[in-house]
Amino acid sequence: MTLDIGVIGVGMIGREHIARLANTLVGARVVALADVDARQAEAVAAGLPGASVYPDGEALIAAPEVQAVVVTSWGPTHATYVLAAIAAGKPVFCEKPLAATAEACLSIVEAEIASGKHLVQVGFQRRYDKGYRALKAAIDGGVIGAPLMIHCAHRNPAVPEAYVSDMAIVDTFIHEIDVLRWLIGDDYVSAQVLKPRNTRHTHAKLDDPIIVLLATKNGVRIDGEVFVNCRYGYDIRCEVVGEEGCATLPEPESVVLRKDAKLSTAIMQDWKLRFLESYDVELQDWIEAAKSGRVDGPNAWDGYFAAVTADACLKAMHSGEVVEIVTPPRPAFYD
Amino acid sequence: MTLDIGVIGVGMIGREHIARLANTLVGARVVALADVDARQAEAVAAGLPGASVYPDGEALIAAPEVQAVVVTSWGPTHATYVLAAIAAGKPVFCEKPLAATAEACLSIVEAEIASGKHLVQVGFQRRYDKGYRALKAAIDGGVIGAPLMIHCAHRNPAVPEAYVSDMAIVDTFIHEIDVLRWLIGDDYVSAQVLKPRNTRHTHAKLDDPIIVLLATKNGVRIDGEVFVNCRYGYDIRCEVVGEEGCATLPEPESVVLRKDAKLSTAIMQDWKLRFLESYDVELQDWIEAAKSGRVDGPNAWDGYFAAVTADACLKAMHSGEVVEIVTPPRPAFYD
Amino acid sequence: MTLDIGVIGVGMIGREHIARLANTLVGARVVALADVDARQAEAVAAGLPGASVYPDGEALIAAPEVQAVVVTSWGPTHATYVLAAIAAGKPVFCEKPLAATAEACLSIVEAEIASGKHLVQVGFQRRYDKGYRALKAAIDGGVIGAPLMIHCAHRNPAVPEAYVSDMAIVDTFIHEIDVLRWLIGDDYVSAQVLKPRNTRHTHAKLDDPIIVLLATKNGVRIDGEVFVNCRYGYDIRCEVVGEEGCATLPEPESVVLRKDAKLSTAIMQDWKLRFLESYDVELQDWIEAAKSGRVDGPNAWDGYFAAVTADACLKAMHSGEVVEIVTPPRPAFYD
Amino acid sequence: MTLDIGVIGVGMIGREHIARLANTLVGARVVALADVDARQAEAVAAGLPGASVYPDGEALIAAPEVQAVVVTSWGPTHATYVLAAIAAGKPVFCEKPLAATAEACLSIVEAEIASGKHLVQVGFQRRYDKGYRALKAAIDGGVIGAPLMIHCAHRNPAVPEAYVSDMAIVDTFIHEIDVLRWLIGDDYVSAQVLKPRNTRHTHAKLDDPIIVLLATKNGVRIDGEVFVNCRYGYDIRCEVVGEEGCATLPEPESVVLRKDAKLSTAIMQDWKLRFLESYDVELQDWIEAAKSGRVDGPNAWDGYFAAVTADACLKAMHSGEVVEIVTPPRPAFYD
Repeated sequence: MTLDIGVIGVGMIGREHIARLANTLVGARVVALADVDARQAEAVAAGLPGASVYPDGEALIAAPEVQAVVVTSWGPTHATYVLAAIAAGKPVFCEKPLAATAEACLSIVEAEIASGKHLVQVGFQRRYDKGYRALKAAIDGGVIGAPLMIHCAHRNPAVPEAYVSDMAIVDTFIHEIDVLRWLIGDDYVSAQVLKPRNTRHTHAKLDDPIIVLLATKNGVRIDGEVFVNCRYGYDIRCEVVGEEGCATLPEPESVVLRKDAKLSTAIMQDWKLRFLESYDVELQDWIEAAKSGRVDGPNAWDGYFAAVTADACLKAMHSGEVVEIVTPPRPAFYD
Repeated sequence: MTLDIGVIGVGMIGREHIARLANTLVGARVVALADVDARQAEAVAAGLPGASVYPDGEALIAAPEVQAVVVTSWGPTHATYVLAAIAAGKPVFCEKPLAATAEACLSIVEAEIASGKHLVQVGFQRRYDKGYRALKAAIDGGVIGAPLMIHCAHRNPAVPEAYVSDMAIVDTFIHEIDVLRWLIGDDYVSAQVLKPRNTRHTHAKLDDPIIVLLATKNGVRIDGEVFVNCRYGYDIRCEVVGEEGCATLPEPESVVLRKDAKLSTAIMQDWKLRFLESYDVELQDWIEAAKSGRVDGPNAWDGYFAAVTADACLKAMHSGEVVEIVTPPRPAFYD
Repeated sequence: MTLDIGVIGVGMIGREHIARLANTLVGARVVALADVDARQAEAVAAGLPGASVYPDGEALIAAPEVQAVVVTSWGPTHATYVLAAIAAGKPVFCEKPLAATAEACLSIVEAEIASGKHLVQVGFQRRYDKGYRALKAAIDGGVIGAPLMIHCAHRNPAVPEAYVSDMAIVDTFIHEIDVLRWLIGDDYVSAQVLKPRNTRHTHAKLDDPIIVLLATKNGVRIDGEVFVNCRYGYDIRCEVVGEEGCATLPEPESVVLRKDAKLSTAIMQDWKLRFLESYDVELQDWIEAAKSGRVDGPNAWDGYFAAVTADACLKAMHSGEVVEIVTPPRPAFYD
Repeated sequence: MTLDIGVIGVGMIGREHIARLANTLVGARVVALADVDARQAEAVAAGLPGASVYPDGEALIAAPEVQAVVVTSWGPTHATYVLAAIAAGKPVFCEKPLAATAEACLSIVEAEIASGKHLVQVGFQRRYDKGYRALKAAIDGGVIGAPLMIHCAHRNPAVPEAYVSDMAIVDTFIHEIDVLRWLIGDDYVSAQVLKPRNTRHTHAKLDDPIIVLLATKNGVRIDGEVFVNCRYGYDIRCEVVGEEGCATLPEPESVVLRKDAKLSTAIMQDWKLRFLESYDVELQDWIEAAKSGRVDGPNAWDGYFAAVTADACLKAMHSGEVVEIVTPPRPAFYD
């Protein structure tokens, strides 16, 4: 059975997912497109035999030929399309963020529960990265005992002027927020943000680096460095310290060189390459699950929890205070 | 366009390739099967909608619905099927060995040249491994200058009694024979084999370990350890020493553990897992190339050259002498 | 010229320093001993040709034959002996702590300044570790640019019941307090302590692990994990993140093993072995400096600053609050 | 007890040993000097209180005040002084080579046996390197089972024109010859030398790199690369492959840097720094042993065996043949 997919939003990430579905993944095809820029949608459709262009996302979702929906439009529009897909009873894969506010995320959660069907997956691709999966397998396998602390860092060589302080949380650290919670099967209860002196390579509107401190329900303490003008490369690090040992995220495979007085491996410069394979795995996994009426990846509740946590981190960053992270209890629907 | 493939031989490797073509790769489907054990072929066909079973490989090759052929039958039958595919003008992917003897390989080379079409690919999957590709990219990019030496090792935790000394060359070191030649773009001119004392874990009919010494046309010297009862794991190592530096094959990605007084990463035990992804890349690459009438992977000449080299290594192993590796010049057809 | 040394306190660390001075180091000899347990002092003297036993530390310090003093007695007695050595105008090497309270340390600082001579060195041996020295050389050499953050950990396999929470600061983290300040040439301005859930391997009176957060005058942020029942080994880690790159303390040299499905190096179990060589370097360096009337190692001000910082960390640990670290400005005497 | 030492030869290595004995080591002092250039000896003596200059090595050896002798003169003169020291019944530490020919080494062996006293140590300092010692401890401790193969490399960034092919054996690989034999407690029985193409960075009179193949009495096979214009650094590598696992010489401790798109450690450029500490350990160890009438380090038989092996390697290099390594059985005196 082939899953017939409609894609809303044909910007960069949308086109990447379309190419993935067309050329790399199996069991699905793109049959429908919509974009706020209709000409752009037409241009993409021209390269996709059998794909129709719809005037808007709602029309695409409503189309009988569309069995499942991928939302890759502008962030503020996500919630509308996700809610429409739920209303139509169709599986929907929505790129992060699930919605522009935690409240809107919660509405999605409520709508999904009301629908009685598991329909919504959020695009947190790190859960599909081979390295993080191996790390989770070690933790779940009891290799290091109960987790006590996580030390992690999210470093990027440089960001443009348009990247301002809040983005360190909502665009960058948001990946740690989702993946760490999944890694240790725990929820956050408070956030604090430390501000070291700024690097000389930052911009006027960006505090860089910062350190985010999270505490979890089980008492795990996390320190997460976000440093987006670190110069030397795109570097994602994560060490989980447990009662019996520590496990660290693998470095990406790299040829070992002995040259020019150095024994070295390469550090990537381009974040897109770092998790490239995980996007394929993520979307292939979603296709299989969607066909079976399941959501195996990050669900609407995860999207909501990430939003609440990000809000708390922002508040902590602006206030310098420890901020509590409060949500209703997780609905049994998501157990 | 979908490539309609017939598979000859549904043993373990045959079934793995069929599963790959059915579930993981894109642009191809298995439409025909043949096996010396017809019931086995029927059983596999039962799980493959639209696949027919043919009484023998020749009939499968001749079937109009078959556009390309995968040969995964018993080694001694390979040449017959490959020659039949050439005669039928159909692309053929043949698992190693291309043929049982170097002479038979050469007949295939001659038949392919006579056909005027590039049709034959041999299943040396290491050329598709991410690590070897990165290593070749470093060499081709001039990072280490002109290669002078290669130090490598092919280690396996243990082999059964049925594995005898010659298999260290024809089943094990054959992978190094192909991949090293490709890595440095060079041909071998002589072979010598050293026999260290045997490990106490070997069997009566197996000299283990051995060290194969190869010299190339450009004067590169290779020492290749083959140690198939090394106990500790499946471990493939390769260091290329060049005029400006050295480059080493990456270790497979692994979680770093600090536990029980050790800082460690895992070493695989199962050879099948080590190059698992490379089989997918190999076959996907072949599908694309076959559709375009190209052979981008190891071709018939490569299969022939590997056979001649393996013969020389065997002779060197049995005699203790340095054995010359002699072939006709490479036909322009393969430039 | 040989430096004639008197040692006050012949417990474990005292006897180690005596053995060092007698057998390994050059340019000094132990001529005088004192200990609260006179028989113990006699016993040690019996193995030291030419060494006399004095009834108490004061008598030893006053003895004309004693040119320099090593204080390795019980912590609460340190200040008295150090002050006596200053009064006698003799160089004194005092094991940590310099004194039992920050106030007592400050009295020593004032006495030393009043004496007009540089006489006091405190036994913070990590500054003499080859690894830390290489790390400092990289920082001072501008390799990583201006420091912004330090991530570090001090892990020990296990501690006895007698080790209670405050000791995590005053006996364990005290080493980081001194060495990090020296590493980046900066002073601390505040401390905060986080308490993750306790490991199941801790005791009733010990919060383990903890995370100490320090901020410096220059805005560097430090997170230091102290985990003294980590099971897996004695492991000291330190990463300094700068504006142009990161530098990490080297792992101690270790044979690399490939065995039992693991690629591993050993992690030490015994903290005494980790910095063993640095004690030799430290004391040899002190001998040379003492002969020249200099103090090149951690001085009285450093001992005072460490004491003030430790007090702030303790207060932070007990209160859960951010605690300021306040000292008078550093006297010009110590520039 | 202080050992009163006479040093013959005050060239670079002589002066280094003198400085070591004067400033770093304990239990010995330099009381006598001799050099073919008397003014040079006088100049060195000027900085050594209490040291006398003797007109020649023989006079120095005969002087009653000299209890032990260090020979650091020009290689061809070594045998004469060592024999004189034996005749005088005085312990002698002789820098490599023990003598200019294997025959002369054998005469020394015979003279020492005839004297009935263990007097001669040869300056192969690698046995005192911390890394090699850890490697030997792992082997001797049975960690990797019985050794089967050794893969090693001796690389140097560059050599001057004066360094010709034979020096790759007698000055460079000679260190591997001694240390590997000690490492696995085995003797060599044959040598072969392979010549890869020359690096473009070599000189007219130097084949560089070469690969030396050694076989031992127990059937261990060794491949040793010698590459003295490798450009990238001074790099000593050694992997011992045993029946149960492999053990590798540690890399020297180095700060780990993340900078400029590389994760790197430094590779030394200067060979003198690589084994710097081992010279101290070696000479200190010799002092202790000499006082007790023992030789714990490389003895005259080891010096002889190294000379015979080097001769065989040279013959193998010049002839391209496998050359047997033949010595009389080891005298019981050296058991």
